[in-house]
Amino acid sequence: MSDATTGEEMMTIIAFSGDLDKLWPTTILASTAAANGMDVTVFATFWGLFPLVKDGEKIGHDAMTKMLAGMNPPGFTKAKLSKMNMAGMGRSMMRKVAAKNNLMPPEELFEMCLDMGVKVWPCQMTMDLLGIRADQMLPGLGDPAGAATALARMAKSEINLFI
Amino acid sequence: MSDATTGEEMMTIIAFSGDLDKLWPTTILASTAAANGMDVTVFATFWGLFPLVKDGEKIGHDAMTKMLAGMNPPGFTKAKLSKMNMAGMGRSMMRKVAAKNNLMPPEELFEMCLDMGVKVWPCQMTMDLLGIRADQMLPGLGDPAGAATALARMAKSEINLFI
Amino acid sequence: MSDATTGEEMMTIIAFSGDLDKLWPTTILASTAAANGMDVTVFATFWGLFPLVKDGEKIGHDAMTKMLAGMNPPGFTKAKLSKMNMAGMGRSMMRKVAAKNNLMPPEELFEMCLDMGVKVWPCQMTMDLLGIRADQMLPGLGDPAGAATALARMAKSEINLFI
Repeated sequence: MSDATTGEEMMTIIAFSGDLDKLWPTTILASTAAANGMDVTVFATFWGLFPLVKDGEKIGHDAMTKMLAGMNPPGFTKAKLSKMNMAGMGRSMMRKVAAKNNLMPPEELFEMCLDMGVKVWPCQMTMDLLGIRADQMLPGLGDPAGAATALARMAKSEINLFI
Repeated sequence: MSDATTGEEMMTIIAFSGDLDKLWPTTILASTAAANGMDVTVFATFWGLFPLVKDGEKIGHDAMTKMLAGMNPPGFTKAKLSKMNMAGMGRSMMRKVAAKNNLMPPEELFEMCLDMGVKVWPCQMTMDLLGIRADQMLPGLGDPAGAATALARMAKSEINLFI
Repeated sequence: MSDATTGEEMMTIIAFSGDLDKLWPTTILASTAAANGMDVTVFATFWGLFPLVKDGEKIGHDAMTKMLAGMNPPGFTKAKLSKMNMAGMGRSMMRKVAAKNNLMPPEELFEMCLDMGVKVWPCQMTMDLLGIRADQMLPGLGDPAGAATALARMAKSEINLFI
């Protein structure tokens, strides 16, 4: 359907996963689409919100959510592989393979996304659920949004992906 | 493209995962879309069929499929987290975090989906494969359907997601 | 939007996963869509590239990528379940359940996809990253492609899925 005002094609990604290996397709697809003139939104929800938390922030509003954050440390650089993580060895190896082959790490690709105008909407419900405040998240994100807002955008987007 | 008769926008979700954490986006997106006037179908297939089996039903048509069901117990309340399940502790904790923060459990969100007119189609092929009879599944589901039927609906839907 | 030349509806699948259980939806949806006259492309990337490597090929261009391939052996028949793999028992059992219930294994469904005109594009970036040469991959694939090419096709497709 495209954006009525600009005529640009639209892509919306629901970034549900916070796994290192899935941060690559999200950031590569988003930045590539933006570079090719598409209007791109990433709706970050559930585990996908963890990478967007600033390094070192303590999240969680009670014992349980703090424990959850302890087991699943926030921040791009803490993201684990969805499999073969092997106490961090898989993650570390995958990052080295990427660096050696000129594939940018997801945190740099993410910066590039923001620079290129990709909108990143943190999921308000997940923030409430996990005890993440807006000021604990990376700069440059859009306002927290709910599922209804994301769905309205997806209904207008040529490409919708759940990653 | 929308529904030709009603003009409503359409969303189709392929619910492939039966993991607890993925049951939330499926039921939240489906119920929110329905609440906003969209015509929503969930095509439940593979692991995504397990939550739709009634509590306590014994599924499986031979030793192997029975063993498979034993390792992956059917029913919404048995669904495990995709990671950090830790012998059920992660699941239990996540359910407590949800309850404490007024996020309905997936089984209640699912009831809400049905109440709001979301169509849920169990995958016929998966039922045959795993030995799940129609009478063993939750009430309110649509007729079992195949991939061709799901694809025909997806070709008309504004939003298609594989979860 | 459909193909401007043929008027056929289009589907594009990003095959990110190489897990056995996810190879089934990819190949079933792709072959069923093609059988129903759709123009189908599968963009195979990241773990999704491993099944497309010929049996017995040694991939990897250095020690790290060779180790990665060692832990994640390429080829359709080596694909593991995303969960319950249990040192191969889950995989073996799932393959037996499939065979007993007349569900073709993914490698045969994949052949059928190619026979029916499904286009399979290996991701050039992943090939470079993991050290996979074009001659090490199954016959019948399309030319390696990048994210921009995949996105351009997705912007025209009625159905886009990330699996």
